[in-house]
Amino acid sequence: MASKTNAGRFFEDYAVGQVIDHAVPRTLGNGERALYHALYPARHALYSSDAFAQSCGLPGSPLDDLIAFHTVFGKTVPDVSLNAVANLGYAQGRWLKPVFAGDTLRSRSEVIGLKQNSNGRTGVVYVRTTGLNQSGDTVLEYVRWVMVRKRDADAPAPETVVPDLPDAIAAADLVIPEGLDFTNYDFDLAGEPHRLGDYAVGETIDHVDGVTIEEAEHMMATRLWQNTAKVHFDTSARPDGSRLIYGGHVISMARALSFNGLANAQMIVGLNGGAHANPCLAGDTVRAWSEVLEIAETPAPGVGAIRLRLVATKGGAPFALRGEDGKYLSDVLLDLDYWALMPT
Amino acid sequence: MASKTNAGRFFEDYAVGQVIDHAVPRTLGNGERALYHALYPARHALYSSDAFAQSCGLPGSPLDDLIAFHTVFGKTVPDVSLNAVANLGYAQGRWLKPVFAGDTLRSRSEVIGLKQNSNGRTGVVYVRTTGLNQSGDTVLEYVRWVMVRKRDADAPAPETVVPDLPDAIAAADLVIPEGLDFTNYDFDLAGEPHRLGDYAVGETIDHVDGVTIEEAEHMMATRLWQNTAKVHFDTSARPDGSRLIYGGHVISMARALSFNGLANAQMIVGLNGGAHANPCLAGDTVRAWSEVLEIAETPAPGVGAIRLRLVATKGGAPFALRGEDGKYLSDVLLDLDYWALMPT
Amino acid sequence: MASKTNAGRFFEDYAVGQVIDHAVPRTLGNGERALYHALYPARHALYSSDAFAQSCGLPGSPLDDLIAFHTVFGKTVPDVSLNAVANLGYAQGRWLKPVFAGDTLRSRSEVIGLKQNSNGRTGVVYVRTTGLNQSGDTVLEYVRWVMVRKRDADAPAPETVVPDLPDAIAAADLVIPEGLDFTNYDFDLAGEPHRLGDYAVGETIDHVDGVTIEEAEHMMATRLWQNTAKVHFDTSARPDGSRLIYGGHVISMARALSFNGLANAQMIVGLNGGAHANPCLAGDTVRAWSEVLEIAETPAPGVGAIRLRLVATKGGAPFALRGEDGKYLSDVLLDLDYWALMPT
Repeated sequence: MASKTNAGRFFEDYAVGQVIDHAVPRTLGNGERALYHALYPARHALYSSDAFAQSCGLPGSPLDDLIAFHTVFGKTVPDVSLNAVANLGYAQGRWLKPVFAGDTLRSRSEVIGLKQNSNGRTGVVYVRTTGLNQSGDTVLEYVRWVMVRKRDADAPAPETVVPDLPDAIAAADLVIPEGLDFTNYDFDLAGEPHRLGDYAVGETIDHVDGVTIEEAEHMMATRLWQNTAKVHFDTSARPDGSRLIYGGHVISMARALSFNGLANAQMIVGLNGGAHANPCLAGDTVRAWSEVLEIAETPAPGVGAIRLRLVATKGGAPFALRGEDGKYLSDVLLDLDYWALMPT
Repeated sequence: MASKTNAGRFFEDYAVGQVIDHAVPRTLGNGERALYHALYPARHALYSSDAFAQSCGLPGSPLDDLIAFHTVFGKTVPDVSLNAVANLGYAQGRWLKPVFAGDTLRSRSEVIGLKQNSNGRTGVVYVRTTGLNQSGDTVLEYVRWVMVRKRDADAPAPETVVPDLPDAIAAADLVIPEGLDFTNYDFDLAGEPHRLGDYAVGETIDHVDGVTIEEAEHMMATRLWQNTAKVHFDTSARPDGSRLIYGGHVISMARALSFNGLANAQMIVGLNGGAHANPCLAGDTVRAWSEVLEIAETPAPGVGAIRLRLVATKGGAPFALRGEDGKYLSDVLLDLDYWALMPT
Repeated sequence: MASKTNAGRFFEDYAVGQVIDHAVPRTLGNGERALYHALYPARHALYSSDAFAQSCGLPGSPLDDLIAFHTVFGKTVPDVSLNAVANLGYAQGRWLKPVFAGDTLRSRSEVIGLKQNSNGRTGVVYVRTTGLNQSGDTVLEYVRWVMVRKRDADAPAPETVVPDLPDAIAAADLVIPEGLDFTNYDFDLAGEPHRLGDYAVGETIDHVDGVTIEEAEHMMATRLWQNTAKVHFDTSARPDGSRLIYGGHVISMARALSFNGLANAQMIVGLNGGAHANPCLAGDTVRAWSEVLEIAETPAPGVGAIRLRLVATKGGAPFALRGEDGKYLSDVLLDLDYWALMPT
């Protein structure tokens, strides 16, 4: 009888245009929200308080935008990255609808590009993933590309298709949550006085605080999003006996640390790009710094958009990113480019 | 003034027919559900998604069957196993009603057997434990027997009563949750295409994945079920300074790992037997394999029953269970025999 | 451009009469409740079961009183204790209204005293903190005093104002939750038979059990209350590379352990004083003992009040508190003086 367990897809199992409905829909609730606050030093007021969110025109406090991202992403792992050698990049990410407690999310991916590597043993797979709620509304979409092993090095290479991926979402293409209104925004309760006009393109912010990570924490986080890639859980899965920390754990940690200096960068609405520059392991102390890349208006009352580079490090001086060779410094964990909404 | 703390019951404190109402009822909710997903790689769709559960005829997604089991079990610890030398076995377990967020569980045990050991210092106590919800409905029942110390070795032995415990629940005696209907079961969303007819008696499945366990995780899990046995929490309670991992943590870990190959073994409805073969400690990497023991029909539409042996190990080859001497191999942690419901 | 991150207030930034509205209101729910049960061996029935709480006249099970305390306290950290050298004491704490899932808490502090130390480099700041819910009701109030660094040792000393703080809340000033009625109290379900009349002033109780603490647990707990003081999270923040455990984690651990002997000391309604006698670090095994300080009646049916000293230790014999020099013994972690409600 054939094996009943999932061996994952290999490079030659993908075809451009193929649509994969990923397994295991998930109902999210206040438990996931509480765990998010226990795992990360998250303090953005809109995601902490129903009363605050209601004062901003929302029906209640949404679940953190990264809860939605991690949940949608986690479902793609068994179909997209079980045999991945590396997660190469993100692009064209947009949050289209806030997720509230009680919503059920599922994920669907379309293969939009394929390119076999010259070594003949691996190839790059590009997928556009969408997260859908129980009503079939898209809550989130993003493009990700990963390097995947071939099952058989002799299998013929597919036609190369590389999607055209702009460097960033244009501000005009960001979707502002229905009803959002920052005209009565309470800066005292939010924690900082800085509004959009107080930030300048090119400004850098050292978020100061650091968090030393423990094995139990990143494993609980990663399981919470039903991401079951072996390397995060099993000390026998990697030659050095270490458990690689899920890149999304570093994203959430850095984003939460950025509260100190960016407390009013409330909602993540765009993901322009991102690289997991170096592996993160338990015992590392994660710090973060940000750089303001772009500032824009939105049609919603009192709501502006700020494009930020968010860098997570495990040491080194703030604001150092690449060496003279153009490569990421060895202490850099994450280089993320995203859009957030901020009161004007 | 007499001590106000609980010293636990000793063997001579039990009498056949005695009924113990265990303390501290517990309201379970979405927080416990989220923690369960953070502690175990649980992905069975019926317990993950309200929408999926509704498509199977249930009012919403129940709490994992093992949340109900651990909660009911935990309450019995101060009265049944505080002075236990060993947990010897389980039998005749049945889940009678799914538990939903908001339900309040309490536990009651009846002593159904007593047998003093020949050494005169310990004896075996058999209890039938029932879990009751806020309406007084029985949600769960099972028999457990433990070896308990005598307070006084000179106390007279009670009359020996050993209950007649069949090896397994007959398929016809399983209780199918009201309304359950698998005729529209979505195999894509559930994660695997295998239905009951795809499994054969005697078939074995290696669930492949492993999880290395941390102290913080098993202590959080064990406290969550209000199981406060010292050996799980206090490094000074055992001679070697280790904290013994609650056997139920290993059951939940193995059951969650079994998703990979048994994604459609959705609901646990019977517990035929179980042995905690060797102690599990932090640092162990838990793996699991299953063997199909029996296959049966049920009266519910599209719903079959599968009886499974679930074995958790901390190493060794899959499918190895006992040595030539008939004893469990030293790497085997758990040997569990249970019934689950699966689409036909 | 000036730094956008919070450097915290220094001694000369406070003035008597100053009112600070602390940032980031927080909606609490069943997720926080479940995490509280996972982090501490909490078993008091009123906080575990809706059905039990309803049998005591409440609309449902409140969130643990210490969840309310930690949440309100955590919000004050960025404004009160970021540059604190030491947390010196608590007084005049009263719980005025139970907190239920769905409530949103925020914190406000008034500076009620200032006293520069003779070294000229630090001073003591006294604040009265109130916790408010979404309706503006005060749910909690307490006085805390901390030693804070001066930014500039040459800054002039403020006028010394030391508030008059009675040693304890008078029993008559305790606020009993509306509707509370212990006349139908179920001692079996609560876990112990001891009522108020079974305790005598001067009686001491060894709570027996111990819990060895892990880094991941105290960090999750401390983040959960949005307390972000560096020393709890960052191994590079203290010279010895250790992470200091938040004092509130020790309070909750000791209170939960005190169930064994004080299962019916259900609701905390007063905090008379408290000292964090020695630092607690991961690996420490926390134990607890209590001493009955006072017993009183209340106007509510069947409800009495018991004033308790709760001592947490990391070793040593129970009931040992201070050495011959009058100082706390090195194994003592916490000396807390509080009022709880108990059936008469």
